[in-house]
Amino acid sequence: MSEHIKFIQGNEVIVEGALYAGLNFFAGYPITPSTEIAEQLSARLPQQGGKFIQMEDEISSMCAIIGASLTGNKVMTATSGPGFSLMQEALGYAIMAEIPCVIVDVQRGGPSTGNPTHVSQGDVMQARWGTHGDHAIVVYTASNHQDLFALTVEAFNVAETYRTPVILLIDEVVGHMREKVVIPAEGDLPLVNRLRTTVKGGVDYHPYLPREDGRLPMSDFGGVHRYNVTGLFHDMWGFPSTNPEVVKGLLRHLIDKICNNVNQIEHHREYYLEDAECVLISYGSSARSALHVVESRRQRGEMLGLLELQTLWPFPYDMVRAKCKNAQFVLVAEMNMGQVLRSVKTAVDDPAKVYLANRVDGEFITGRDIRNILRIIMGKGV
Amino acid sequence: MSEHIKFIQGNEVIVEGALYAGLNFFAGYPITPSTEIAEQLSARLPQQGGKFIQMEDEISSMCAIIGASLTGNKVMTATSGPGFSLMQEALGYAIMAEIPCVIVDVQRGGPSTGNPTHVSQGDVMQARWGTHGDHAIVVYTASNHQDLFALTVEAFNVAETYRTPVILLIDEVVGHMREKVVIPAEGDLPLVNRLRTTVKGGVDYHPYLPREDGRLPMSDFGGVHRYNVTGLFHDMWGFPSTNPEVVKGLLRHLIDKICNNVNQIEHHREYYLEDAECVLISYGSSARSALHVVESRRQRGEMLGLLELQTLWPFPYDMVRAKCKNAQFVLVAEMNMGQVLRSVKTAVDDPAKVYLANRVDGEFITGRDIRNILRIIMGKGV
Amino acid sequence: MSEHIKFIQGNEVIVEGALYAGLNFFAGYPITPSTEIAEQLSARLPQQGGKFIQMEDEISSMCAIIGASLTGNKVMTATSGPGFSLMQEALGYAIMAEIPCVIVDVQRGGPSTGNPTHVSQGDVMQARWGTHGDHAIVVYTASNHQDLFALTVEAFNVAETYRTPVILLIDEVVGHMREKVVIPAEGDLPLVNRLRTTVKGGVDYHPYLPREDGRLPMSDFGGVHRYNVTGLFHDMWGFPSTNPEVVKGLLRHLIDKICNNVNQIEHHREYYLEDAECVLISYGSSARSALHVVESRRQRGEMLGLLELQTLWPFPYDMVRAKCKNAQFVLVAEMNMGQVLRSVKTAVDDPAKVYLANRVDGEFITGRDIRNILRIIMGKGV
Amino acid sequence: MSEHIKFIQGNEVIVEGALYAGLNFFAGYPITPSTEIAEQLSARLPQQGGKFIQMEDEISSMCAIIGASLTGNKVMTATSGPGFSLMQEALGYAIMAEIPCVIVDVQRGGPSTGNPTHVSQGDVMQARWGTHGDHAIVVYTASNHQDLFALTVEAFNVAETYRTPVILLIDEVVGHMREKVVIPAEGDLPLVNRLRTTVKGGVDYHPYLPREDGRLPMSDFGGVHRYNVTGLFHDMWGFPSTNPEVVKGLLRHLIDKICNNVNQIEHHREYYLEDAECVLISYGSSARSALHVVESRRQRGEMLGLLELQTLWPFPYDMVRAKCKNAQFVLVAEMNMGQVLRSVKTAVDDPAKVYLANRVDGEFITGRDIRNILRIIMGKGV
Repeated sequence: MSEHIKFIQGNEVIVEGALYAGLNFFAGYPITPSTEIAEQLSARLPQQGGKFIQMEDEISSMCAIIGASLTGNKVMTATSGPGFSLMQEALGYAIMAEIPCVIVDVQRGGPSTGNPTHVSQGDVMQARWGTHGDHAIVVYTASNHQDLFALTVEAFNVAETYRTPVILLIDEVVGHMREKVVIPAEGDLPLVNRLRTTVKGGVDYHPYLPREDGRLPMSDFGGVHRYNVTGLFHDMWGFPSTNPEVVKGLLRHLIDKICNNVNQIEHHREYYLEDAECVLISYGSSARSALHVVESRRQRGEMLGLLELQTLWPFPYDMVRAKCKNAQFVLVAEMNMGQVLRSVKTAVDDPAKVYLANRVDGEFITGRDIRNILRIIMGKGV
Repeated sequence: MSEHIKFIQGNEVIVEGALYAGLNFFAGYPITPSTEIAEQLSARLPQQGGKFIQMEDEISSMCAIIGASLTGNKVMTATSGPGFSLMQEALGYAIMAEIPCVIVDVQRGGPSTGNPTHVSQGDVMQARWGTHGDHAIVVYTASNHQDLFALTVEAFNVAETYRTPVILLIDEVVGHMREKVVIPAEGDLPLVNRLRTTVKGGVDYHPYLPREDGRLPMSDFGGVHRYNVTGLFHDMWGFPSTNPEVVKGLLRHLIDKICNNVNQIEHHREYYLEDAECVLISYGSSARSALHVVESRRQRGEMLGLLELQTLWPFPYDMVRAKCKNAQFVLVAEMNMGQVLRSVKTAVDDPAKVYLANRVDGEFITGRDIRNILRIIMGKGV
Repeated sequence: MSEHIKFIQGNEVIVEGALYAGLNFFAGYPITPSTEIAEQLSARLPQQGGKFIQMEDEISSMCAIIGASLTGNKVMTATSGPGFSLMQEALGYAIMAEIPCVIVDVQRGGPSTGNPTHVSQGDVMQARWGTHGDHAIVVYTASNHQDLFALTVEAFNVAETYRTPVILLIDEVVGHMREKVVIPAEGDLPLVNRLRTTVKGGVDYHPYLPREDGRLPMSDFGGVHRYNVTGLFHDMWGFPSTNPEVVKGLLRHLIDKICNNVNQIEHHREYYLEDAECVLISYGSSARSALHVVESRRQRGEMLGLLELQTLWPFPYDMVRAKCKNAQFVLVAEMNMGQVLRSVKTAVDDPAKVYLANRVDGEFITGRDIRNILRIIMGKGV
Repeated sequence: MSEHIKFIQGNEVIVEGALYAGLNFFAGYPITPSTEIAEQLSARLPQQGGKFIQMEDEISSMCAIIGASLTGNKVMTATSGPGFSLMQEALGYAIMAEIPCVIVDVQRGGPSTGNPTHVSQGDVMQARWGTHGDHAIVVYTASNHQDLFALTVEAFNVAETYRTPVILLIDEVVGHMREKVVIPAEGDLPLVNRLRTTVKGGVDYHPYLPREDGRLPMSDFGGVHRYNVTGLFHDMWGFPSTNPEVVKGLLRHLIDKICNNVNQIEHHREYYLEDAECVLISYGSSARSALHVVESRRQRGEMLGLLELQTLWPFPYDMVRAKCKNAQFVLVAEMNMGQVLRSVKTAVDDPAKVYLANRVDGEFITGRDIRNILRIIMGKGV
């Protein structure tokens, strides 16, 4: 039906995708360039019987969605760099306590309050390492609205499947850009719903005892079971433990449940890679310019290809290595000082052949910017 | 003089070093295993005319030292993982506004509240990437009390020289271990004092206009000059700007002032490296066990050597590459899932020859742990 | 003596060097940025008994010095790009008839009248290939006034030794820059004077019959011998021939007398090449910026070195290959679209590791320009 | 119709092709071996309402066709080496001012007046680099009369499409050889006519402002619009500028309009390349001998193939690399000291496997000459 075709901003696409996925609780504090997400949900969620709360800051926003998730809701918050920094402590709690939730970071220029109204992709490393201690996390991004819708739904699915926070890390250009998106009909995209325990009320429920498939069924907190939830290392009952075997076992579980499933979690798009001598790797809005360069140079017979990453963490090292195997050189296009570049260099066989095409002045990286770097790498000068 | 020889905990050594360096303002919130630092300074600082404030949390602690530094003080705060996560947003502000300060993180097991009373080295990557946006930072660590004293002083010197936050990243074992330390006489260690502007009151002062040597003279905020300080990208007057040249120029300045001076900023110790066929790389308390392994194996004629890192960031890639050039393999000993291992793999010519000896269960890594890994690497099995 | 120390423009240095070398005939037509050479010589030459003629254009200037050289004089003309293009036909005649002469091209921006008052190094390939047919030629350049003086003298020496036109190819920055130069005392620099025949008047003189050392003694035209000089292929009497053996023999002679003596003809300077991992190759004023980059980066411990070419043609392929043997990459710094780059790529073992740092907008290439390219090549982005 | 079949010299074929393409203005000065072109056109052009002018020299010839082109005509001149050298300065003007014109160089032996009545291919490098400053140019050649006709037409088409001088670089053998040529009927070969502006008289016309497809519409000079044409770097109005952005932008435009369209501009013929183990590369009359060798050796089962270049500049590096990819060795056959050899060595993956079969004594290179070199390359000695 034609009403399912929309011409909206990326921030609104996330709203549509989250509602499609079953979002029914959002807590947040508005911050440029993510504000439209909270704004739209403040109207949409109550209409559908969901809850919207504007909190006093980002710390409380993160804590609110953790609590709401525990009580049985699909939850999300949205922010930008400074707010994301404030969420890091509670984010670690959600990782440790294995609480499904989706956090949107619409990136702007940093560090600090930085360049609020301009584009950047500077939070890639923070999304992985912002909270203290060893851990793992899932981070998705997208370059266009149709993919953004699908990955928003996937973010909720993965959060539920692995009981983990999932970061939806987009940039200001994607967030504010308007383009066509077709909202799929109900049922077109598969949804993963909360796995609830089959243990009956009044019977012992072990909140941190995995089933044989590795998943942890949940019981709505405050419901029929009483159990403990903590940010400390804990045993299968959720009670704190400093027993070395318990500590190591839980830490490895938190990491392995993500990293051992990278093939299930990972998504990407590829263009002209089969015979590419020069592989561009990009993501988010930068990938739009990279694709433009690839397509225009292909018309001149030059063997360029594009690998567009949609999963930044866990980084798909094996996939990237395979795709770059026959490349004479690899060019990573991103709007930061080379944050994905680091991972690509680690992934490929010859790190010396990996170059960076970037822009860090708040302006959008264009095809021209990438072509200028290509010229220099190819020894053609300015 | 005998009163200059002390037998104290590492946390107390930091107190002594900070006072020696000229600390006169501390704000903090106690958290295990860093609490002794605040405890000692609550008594020592007022005796010397300095200020100690216990704040309501770590966010306010970080903000308090930023303000106090701007008004002319040498400042410090101390915390552990969860508190360090909470400080990340204000830490980015100190980076952007170029405010000298020292932050101590006495690491415990994470993520989240984790394993408060047990050792870990899990915050290495967070110390680099915890705040959002591209940036650079200085992180020192030490394995023994004499070095810890010197590096605490150096942390203050570097903070003043480069107008940057400096992280003193130690671990619970170093923090709580007691051993001898000789407090140097006044003048034995050079001190870098605040570079104050020579611009007179009533005359225009450009707070973000570097001198020809690259340093930015400061004027005590609230003193004779009025000027603006912001976390936004800003021009030489400190006023916000979204001009692409200004944005890129400031970002590159913030990174280059640290990364281009890695040779000045970097410290390390080395043992038996000249002819080492196997290079161990370690830091903090792990380096004590690594040194034990090296020395005992040298007695058996095995060609082991140890590179003890004292500067974790900016990572001394060139130095590490040079030291590992002739090694048949490299073994990184640390108490996390391989956080320094990543940087070492990036630094060396052949990443495949770099191995990890680690422990992540809250127990201290021993010589036996490292030797067990060595056996396996050398093909001798368990 | 102090009067031998001067603080003058590069164009004036060429005047001093030419007079030192024995110049006694100059014909030219003024053109920016070479005009000071004609201007100064119009006063200096007559004072010393030499001849200065301002001609109606560059074609006649070139023809005048050819005639004057044949009659026994040391000759020179000076021009810039457009004038150099006009000289190409007569330059071919001087090559074919083996007439010693020095042509100065002070490069400005081209093609065509281009950018007369701004710097360029765009005539490198033209200096080699501007006239039609296979041939060889000698082209010198310099980056500083002391070298420029020495190479001006060398240009005259080589012209006489090999009976060939020699191009002194400098750029506008060197031509107009003032710096100290010490004029050597008479006899400090060796001079090569015209090799005159010992054949007496009235006896057969074979103008194109080489001595056993390969040199062709000359007889002042219009003097005691009558002989033929032509731009056609010719035999040992100078008479035209289409005999295939004569044609091939003369063509090979014209090329071999230059290319087989590349080691005698070639001059260069080198800085820090012994252990350089990155070799910069540059020449003319660009080499000043390249040297600045190398020296400042050496202070940071980076293994850069500089090879400064002073002989552009015959290109010293073997020397360049030897100097670049251990380099991880090679960066050619020049103010054109990569004219020396081509030769370097041909010289080295791995052309893919040769990059270009250039500037083609009429502005002088600075250390910053070169450093920016270095960043990108090293994969660090902008 | 039988009148369309002719048995004529190559020089006459060029006359037929030029008239077919719409030539209506020729200025020139006769020089062996190109004289027949001027001779024929002095009769043919006036018959068709075109203009023929014999000028006093080659400089004025080149200037005359530039002026005539600007006023709306399709123009050509023809010369040989010495005259081509004299044209280099004005040729640069045509490049800079983007004036469509065709210059024929019928090569004879050089340098200088050289070997006027004998064959050579010694002006290949001069055709690319004869004028000063960075620039690009199009150079076509042919080995037989049917191709020569088609490429003469294509030269005019490319000159108009890209507003550039195009060099038709043939050799004395092709110029004076007679063989059959079929003159196509009107309309059989597509013609590109002058793109004239749609801007009306009295309205501002920007002579150097490209349309969105990159082409520059022209207005007949002296017609309804007044505008400036200069050999200096200039802005969209044609007025001189030293603005670095304008200078760099125009230089890159002059080069990119040619080099980025190499696939459109490039023509070649190939024989037996699919399975060739030995690839011969040749052009002009040399390609006739090379083809003879290939075809006779194929009859003996030897796996030879021929790539006949018809576009010498912009050199089709990518095409040549692709064609030589599977060759065990490559043999370039040409009548000079290896001028195309240089480009082939740059193009292929392994320069060491590229050899030269040449002749430089004024005699035509025969199949026997090439076979003798082949023996030596294959290790069979002389």
